[in-house]
Amino acid sequence: MMLFDTIAAISTPIGKGGISVIRISGENAIKISEKVFEPVSKNSCSLSEVKSRYMCRGKIWRTYEGGERLCIDDGMAVVFRAPASFTGEDVVEINCHGGALVTKSVLSALVEAGARVAEAGEFTRRAFVNGKMKLTQAEALGLLLEAETENQLRISRGGMRGILSEATEKLYSRLVNVMGRVWAKIDFPDEDLNEMGVSEIIDELSLILGDIEGLAATYKTGRAVSEGIPCAICGHTNVGKSSVYNRIVGYDAAIVTDIEGTTRDILREKVSFGGVTLKISDTAGIRDTDDTVESIGIERAKEEITKCELIFAVFDMGCDITGDDKTFFGELIASGKKVIALYNKIDVSDKNDFKPCEIFDKEIFISAKTGEGFDELADVVGKMFIDGSISLYNDAVVMDARQYGALVSSGAALRRAIDALGAGLALDLSASDIEAAMTSLGELDGREVGEDIVANIFSRFCVGK
Amino acid sequence: MMLFDTIAAISTPIGKGGISVIRISGENAIKISEKVFEPVSKNSCSLSEVKSRYMCRGKIWRTYEGGERLCIDDGMAVVFRAPASFTGEDVVEINCHGGALVTKSVLSALVEAGARVAEAGEFTRRAFVNGKMKLTQAEALGLLLEAETENQLRISRGGMRGILSEATEKLYSRLVNVMGRVWAKIDFPDEDLNEMGVSEIIDELSLILGDIEGLAATYKTGRAVSEGIPCAICGHTNVGKSSVYNRIVGYDAAIVTDIEGTTRDILREKVSFGGVTLKISDTAGIRDTDDTVESIGIERAKEEITKCELIFAVFDMGCDITGDDKTFFGELIASGKKVIALYNKIDVSDKNDFKPCEIFDKEIFISAKTGEGFDELADVVGKMFIDGSISLYNDAVVMDARQYGALVSSGAALRRAIDALGAGLALDLSASDIEAAMTSLGELDGREVGEDIVANIFSRFCVGK
Repeated sequence: MMLFDTIAAISTPIGKGGISVIRISGENAIKISEKVFEPVSKNSCSLSEVKSRYMCRGKIWRTYEGGERLCIDDGMAVVFRAPASFTGEDVVEINCHGGALVTKSVLSALVEAGARVAEAGEFTRRAFVNGKMKLTQAEALGLLLEAETENQLRISRGGMRGILSEATEKLYSRLVNVMGRVWAKIDFPDEDLNEMGVSEIIDELSLILGDIEGLAATYKTGRAVSEGIPCAICGHTNVGKSSVYNRIVGYDAAIVTDIEGTTRDILREKVSFGGVTLKISDTAGIRDTDDTVESIGIERAKEEITKCELIFAVFDMGCDITGDDKTFFGELIASGKKVIALYNKIDVSDKNDFKPCEIFDKEIFISAKTGEGFDELADVVGKMFIDGSISLYNDAVVMDARQYGALVSSGAALRRAIDALGAGLALDLSASDIEAAMTSLGELDGREVGEDIVANIFSRFCVGK
Repeated sequence: MMLFDTIAAISTPIGKGGISVIRISGENAIKISEKVFEPVSKNSCSLSEVKSRYMCRGKIWRTYEGGERLCIDDGMAVVFRAPASFTGEDVVEINCHGGALVTKSVLSALVEAGARVAEAGEFTRRAFVNGKMKLTQAEALGLLLEAETENQLRISRGGMRGILSEATEKLYSRLVNVMGRVWAKIDFPDEDLNEMGVSEIIDELSLILGDIEGLAATYKTGRAVSEGIPCAICGHTNVGKSSVYNRIVGYDAAIVTDIEGTTRDILREKVSFGGVTLKISDTAGIRDTDDTVESIGIERAKEEITKCELIFAVFDMGCDITGDDKTFFGELIASGKKVIALYNKIDVSDKNDFKPCEIFDKEIFISAKTGEGFDELADVVGKMFIDGSISLYNDAVVMDARQYGALVSSGAALRRAIDALGAGLALDLSASDIEAAMTSLGELDGREVGEDIVANIFSRFCVGK
């Protein structure tokens, strides 16, 4: 505790609002805040005398260059004394009025009084370092702050409540237990300690490996919900791509006209569709054109498509699918992308007059105008990426690539241990593999995790958290 | 007090941040919050038992359709019991994590528990109705929330601290005093009550009128700071308008190229320049063109210019000012606009080779590239709109059109009273004019103000304030 300098940041979003909160944390949090915040209640004359957690009214002062001292706002302040605070250090929270400039001025006043502006995620990082939360809980909190869909909210709340961290903890304990038995066998090879035989150790490690793999498998769903699936809508000009986009994002985000080449810039949205978080983009229709801006748009569209994992290929049922189309999408499918064909304008076309092309992962007849077919599409997308048997709120779900990577490493080490034991190799070899499996599992929850990983995780937070 | 239903709103800005505050106010604020917020500290089991102003940790619950009840966040809550709260009613503030979705979910949970979503400015309006602040203080608070310049911050803090309201109060008292003497003269015309004579009443009213007019005159400065001066940059294509714009707003806001017709859309910024809040816009260069989008841009540029009060007419010193230019700007000047000519590219041109045109309010040689001449421009703009003898923080300054209008009406009524007294008309006539002057002055501070005016003022606030 108290190892760090004193940091301050605007903890509420920046923008227009009634209230802003500026948070100060560190050894000198109270002393620095006192220079800026002057209580006006009858009972207290300075913040250091105010009871913990008691909100007091007061005046916020700033000294300008040249010594001019102005009361820049009226506000409230509350002191959380270490260790009973978010970071585990002394924390002061000053509530001021929510104008963007006045909020920044209060922060400036605190910096002028000796605080340092916090880096992104620095408060949460201190909370982690001071044992206030596990690493997976911090990551879940990061997701909660970013959450834009109900499923993201649920999965992050599960993580924050420690469900993943408990599951990891249990696996870790089981490994500790096996490890003890292995060491006993190594140290006292001749004694019968009524311990497990090698085959029983293999059985137990296999069970643990199965559970680790099962946990790792939840990442398919966790990733689809938390990180989201990059998805592009593509096709020729005027087949209704922007209408499909607007229908999926739920409002008139893209301009729709019957002029070819209306969409030029790539539009992006994050949207919940079939339970999946789609990072969906609408792209320029692909055609030959002399228009410079449109050509740039088409280049960008092609680039966007290569970066996506899921592609909605939109066709106008009034036109045939060309050989070029088949080649183009065939290559995308061959490169491992999921491509769903959307045959648009079913409301004014006859299915019998249209010849689908069976290269796609799925083909759906839709009408962007009436909405027909979109429920089916959502259903298909959901089944493609989400394991319906998982409760995002109640089950341990792996939420990000780092957690997944740790589980995969742990599993791989464990498999090596099992193989070595099966081959009758020296127990020491297996022991070091089991140890490696424990290290990876420990990393998952921050038990033994490198500085670079920690820095990377918390840098993704916003400033003020 | 407690006349209203219970309202709730997100009081912090909407966006990404560490903390959000949801405020609940009204008779059932505590009861409704209890359904959503469950304290977890040892000492208290429900919010109604928590001491006022004490922040307690807890869990935030939401019941979904179908009865599913989830803990959607961990947070803090604080109760302010009436009348010691911002609104004067019972207020609960729930701090949750600052993700946009989780914040909205907490608000939804409160609405599902019986609160109504607050309208814009409704909390502040209740504070006004409950006597927690004067109308001019509420207006100053509105400006503080919007403040983007240091001068706006100062002027709003002056208003919030009640300086304008005290000045008004004093003028009102002086009128009350005169009024008493006038009534005494009307009721007891024959008695010598050692009171003022008519000429002394005229003298005192004239002094008050002078002070009212002096106060009204501060609006020139107040308006330039608080409401801002609409200002357009205009001229031919390629004279450097966007470079001038970027220089004034202080960053590369507008794309600058040497291709004619680069700027098409109107760009707008609010910026402090010479102490004035300029609502500045960069417009398309005016020329004949076949490009459809550019033509629309030019039409909009012309429209923008007619709406502005201050115009920066930019010329390239490498080209002569044409007769058409003189006609165009001459008409703008005749219509009452201030037009400052900016002769650009002084860094590569010779003053002696350029023939200025003396129709403008002011002519300045500048270089948008090097910044030469912009200090002079700022100085000119400042002197045009700001009275340098006024301290925005310490002096009573009229901040908006409503306040100014009330002062003008009050002054006009007072002048009628003085004229009637001077002409020897019956005292009753003057008395009713003085009364009208008092009414207008009372309106300034909300003493006697119509519902429609109050509604208009608070509707301009953001939701949550």
